[in-house]
Amino acid sequence: MFHVKHQPGITTPLQARGHLVAFDLAAGAGRKEAAALLRRWSETARRLMAGEPSAQDDTGIARDAGPSSLTVTFGFGHSFFGRTGLEKQRPDALDPLPDFSSDHLDRTRSNGDLWVQIGADDALVAFHALRAIQKDAGSAARVRWQMNGFNRSPGATAHPMTARNLMGQIDGTRNPKPTESDFDERIFVPASGGSGDPEWMANGSYAVVRRIRMLLDDWDQLSLKQQEDVIGRRKSDGAALSGGSGATETTEMDLEKTGSDGKLLVPINAHARISRPDQNGGAAMLRRPFSFHDGIDKDGIPDAGLLFVCWQTDPLRGFVTVQRKLDRGDALSKFIRHESSGLFAVPGGAAKGGYVGQGLMEG
Amino acid sequence: MFHVKHQPGITTPLQARGHLVAFDLAAGAGRKEAAALLRRWSETARRLMAGEPSAQDDTGIARDAGPSSLTVTFGFGHSFFGRTGLEKQRPDALDPLPDFSSDHLDRTRSNGDLWVQIGADDALVAFHALRAIQKDAGSAARVRWQMNGFNRSPGATAHPMTARNLMGQIDGTRNPKPTESDFDERIFVPASGGSGDPEWMANGSYAVVRRIRMLLDDWDQLSLKQQEDVIGRRKSDGAALSGGSGATETTEMDLEKTGSDGKLLVPINAHARISRPDQNGGAAMLRRPFSFHDGIDKDGIPDAGLLFVCWQTDPLRGFVTVQRKLDRGDALSKFIRHESSGLFAVPGGAAKGGYVGQGLMEG
Repeated sequence: MFHVKHQPGITTPLQARGHLVAFDLAAGAGRKEAAALLRRWSETARRLMAGEPSAQDDTGIARDAGPSSLTVTFGFGHSFFGRTGLEKQRPDALDPLPDFSSDHLDRTRSNGDLWVQIGADDALVAFHALRAIQKDAGSAARVRWQMNGFNRSPGATAHPMTARNLMGQIDGTRNPKPTESDFDERIFVPASGGSGDPEWMANGSYAVVRRIRMLLDDWDQLSLKQQEDVIGRRKSDGAALSGGSGATETTEMDLEKTGSDGKLLVPINAHARISRPDQNGGAAMLRRPFSFHDGIDKDGIPDAGLLFVCWQTDPLRGFVTVQRKLDRGDALSKFIRHESSGLFAVPGGAAKGGYVGQGLMEG
Repeated sequence: MFHVKHQPGITTPLQARGHLVAFDLAAGAGRKEAAALLRRWSETARRLMAGEPSAQDDTGIARDAGPSSLTVTFGFGHSFFGRTGLEKQRPDALDPLPDFSSDHLDRTRSNGDLWVQIGADDALVAFHALRAIQKDAGSAARVRWQMNGFNRSPGATAHPMTARNLMGQIDGTRNPKPTESDFDERIFVPASGGSGDPEWMANGSYAVVRRIRMLLDDWDQLSLKQQEDVIGRRKSDGAALSGGSGATETTEMDLEKTGSDGKLLVPINAHARISRPDQNGGAAMLRRPFSFHDGIDKDGIPDAGLLFVCWQTDPLRGFVTVQRKLDRGDALSKFIRHESSGLFAVPGGAAKGGYVGQGLMEG
């Protein structure tokens, strides 16, 4: 489960609960302490994913549920390399993302030296893993930010593979599929090392993490028709608006088709049109988000939206390309706000008896 | 589902997701507006619990999942009666709770004119219901506070009826059971009206709602043995510490039994001992909580714990009696902090074609 080619939590089906947490190394902690921490974390992840108690005093808060689809995924942020004297090993792909006009970024909830993604189908199993990971950090690292997310409960719907987000839209229809021949090339750094990627990133991937607030009170003022025009897909089943009554979520979108009024059925600024890979030079990323809902903010409006996590071989050809395009003309942009941002290098899976990032730490 | 003797969400099995939300009537809104709001809310609850779209523009965010065990429960706070000119109908049972030494109450997250509890096994179904209830409020009421909670996913464990909280303890073993002969008497106001209860509270119940923060970093410093001594039960299976290896969660606790060292096996200040009904003049309440986890607070410690909700015919004989006792000598009190408090009168279920609270509003 844990010792695999690619880290778990990337192609794993969406889980009902998720925790994202970023750590900064403590003052005085360097390469040695970081390596020891990664070893502890890997051992904890291995044990919990096998349904065993964690290595250190286990808090026992998730006894009796087994692993419940638990995955734990580890990544490195740009700042990690300077703090550990490993600047020469820093991938160019970790260069800071460009600014986007829809950004309202909170720096305290962005980036970080280390990033951990936890997912599980049971809330207590996920929480227990988060506590164990925090306990492992000990005096080597402190939590920089932490966010909680969720997806639908297992079995709740007939659409187990495609999520519905808090705007009510089916989200992820055009995701690359592991069965597609170019999937690995788009999502994972090659085993032989990528062009420009350091060797330790073999079989790894890059994660872009954005806390995307949805302005739901504004969104809910729109009629169903208006909402569907913003997205370009039917809300009920996710079919493209160019499709007829028999169309489904996977029916090919017809970008040129017009209605009886001569207007494009999928509007020119519809989110699903603009974000299509074929409108972005083939750019593709694997979106694997969680929804979030942190109650109401101080203005009384819902603090809810999407913990957007996407995976790609190269952030410049994946997320950045698509986001630049969206930034210029996406009808959805009025209803969302990017509140935080992170970019992390996620190495391949740990070798048996080894730990995640060993190639970097001991390379 | 919705039109039943008692409101749903009281004896309903724990759901995976919960939202608690309190509203205050808007300035200028009185009895008439409140009655209209309760009628809208009841209709929305009825429809959503049947898996239908809500009455007003449905946001469609939970299409395709059906009701997913959804319940919506409505209650009235002390302040409601003054604002609607219904002081004479205010139950004595809504008199403010006494102060407890463990209270660190945030008034802005306590009480409220109206209270709604939403529970469902799917996160989107619960969120959709919350949005619909907020939309129904319109200009008649504004959100005073709102909290999110969760329990384990359906099927995650072999203990579907007894929850495990974020401290890892099985919680709710001694809850009264609907199969017990005195269950109704302890939990619900009689159909004929209770002693001192107004007629409109027939078949109703009183809910005490406390946001109980768990000081998990302190708790996790204890050994397993120390944690079990604080509670008086084994963590693994919830069996009382007086039981042997064959004991189970439901094996009767032996309060006098001592170990080979002559000490009581269930310590004198153990939570499970002190909170027992037979140690509190038979006081009993039905605890039906959700866990909460709102990330980390500004001091970097987990903002997590229990959204404690308990149900009883009389708060003075239920919650207050037990809490007074706990207040004086509960070993658990060092590890928890009551951060908010609410007390609500929850009337019986709506009559067919009627709405919740109709007996009060039109009485």
